[in-house]
Amino acid sequence: MEFVIEVDKLKKITRQNYLADGSRKENDAEHSWHLALMALVLCEHVGAEESPDLLRVIKMALIHDLVEIDAGDTYCYDEKANAGKRERELAAADRLFGILPPDQAREFRELWEEFEEQRTPEARFAAALDRLQPLTLNYIAGGKSWREHGISYSQVIKRNSSIGESSPALWKFTLNIIREAVRKGYIKENG
Amino acid sequence: MEFVIEVDKLKKITRQNYLADGSRKENDAEHSWHLALMALVLCEHVGAEESPDLLRVIKMALIHDLVEIDAGDTYCYDEKANAGKRERELAAADRLFGILPPDQAREFRELWEEFEEQRTPEARFAAALDRLQPLTLNYIAGGKSWREHGISYSQVIKRNSSIGESSPALWKFTLNIIREAVRKGYIKENG
Repeated sequence: MEFVIEVDKLKKITRQNYLADGSRKENDAEHSWHLALMALVLCEHVGAEESPDLLRVIKMALIHDLVEIDAGDTYCYDEKANAGKRERELAAADRLFGILPPDQAREFRELWEEFEEQRTPEARFAAALDRLQPLTLNYIAGGKSWREHGISYSQVIKRNSSIGESSPALWKFTLNIIREAVRKGYIKENG
Repeated sequence: MEFVIEVDKLKKITRQNYLADGSRKENDAEHSWHLALMALVLCEHVGAEESPDLLRVIKMALIHDLVEIDAGDTYCYDEKANAGKRERELAAADRLFGILPPDQAREFRELWEEFEEQRTPEARFAAALDRLQPLTLNYIAGGKSWREHGISYSQVIKRNSSIGESSPALWKFTLNIIREAVRKGYIKENG
């Protein structure tokens, strides 16, 4: 139960993207819930050659950001802040998963490492959702977060193209959103 | 994707309980994430005669409060407000799950009905977590929500005793929290 109480802090970790209605920024707990629910709804759009195990995808979605309780949210387009990210998150994983009984600590740690390494269909699908979710919210919120940071088309393409490694169908959908976002002036045309 | 965007509204549905640090009230999306994560961590404390399927428990945890997007959060100790709750939630289920493709609409509706009916080990475990989670946060937050509403020992016992139907071990743990909460004056002794 100590772990259950400790993870409550994820609700205080604020992300860069806004809710769909633009009223406030999202937090990591809300984001993780949204990812897990999207896994349920969108799993059928992942190709047969990937066929991720849904339970493992959802587990990853639920825990993938827990390390940010200690390491903080690092904005994906902030190259400087991303430099020390891995070290901060490793230390966080040691402390946080270390609160659990040994067998669960091992399972959670392995799930988090699997997500980070992006070598399995489950990790690739979870990561695709981790990109598609804020992108969709950003678009619906009128590009608020992209505009605040002056993000360009090439930055968004570079950040999100890995979605296609999990699901060409979801990447096609994503590309349509990105192009529409450029057309509406949410994302800068050149960068 | 229309459904994925629509459910973002769950992040705006405020509950009666506070975060563990008492800083603000929790919302339904955060609560649903916390439940799903608790299912992972606490599943081993459910007895062998129940043996819930973890994926179905987590699915229920993720979607059990979606109807509150339309029906609102009804405080569990408010008897008057609970009177019309079922009708409001049925209408919400029709509209929300109706956004999904037919096969998913059916699956989500059945999961929600299963949770409501409390006839399966999965529904009982999800409901036990749905009680244990706010109770634990209330306790850690110094009983803030119980004190604000003048909640008594007998009310808390009546509300939470069904935890024992899923897991005697979790009910024993819950009883200890409740007794400690009474001792500390978070919950009224008689009512």
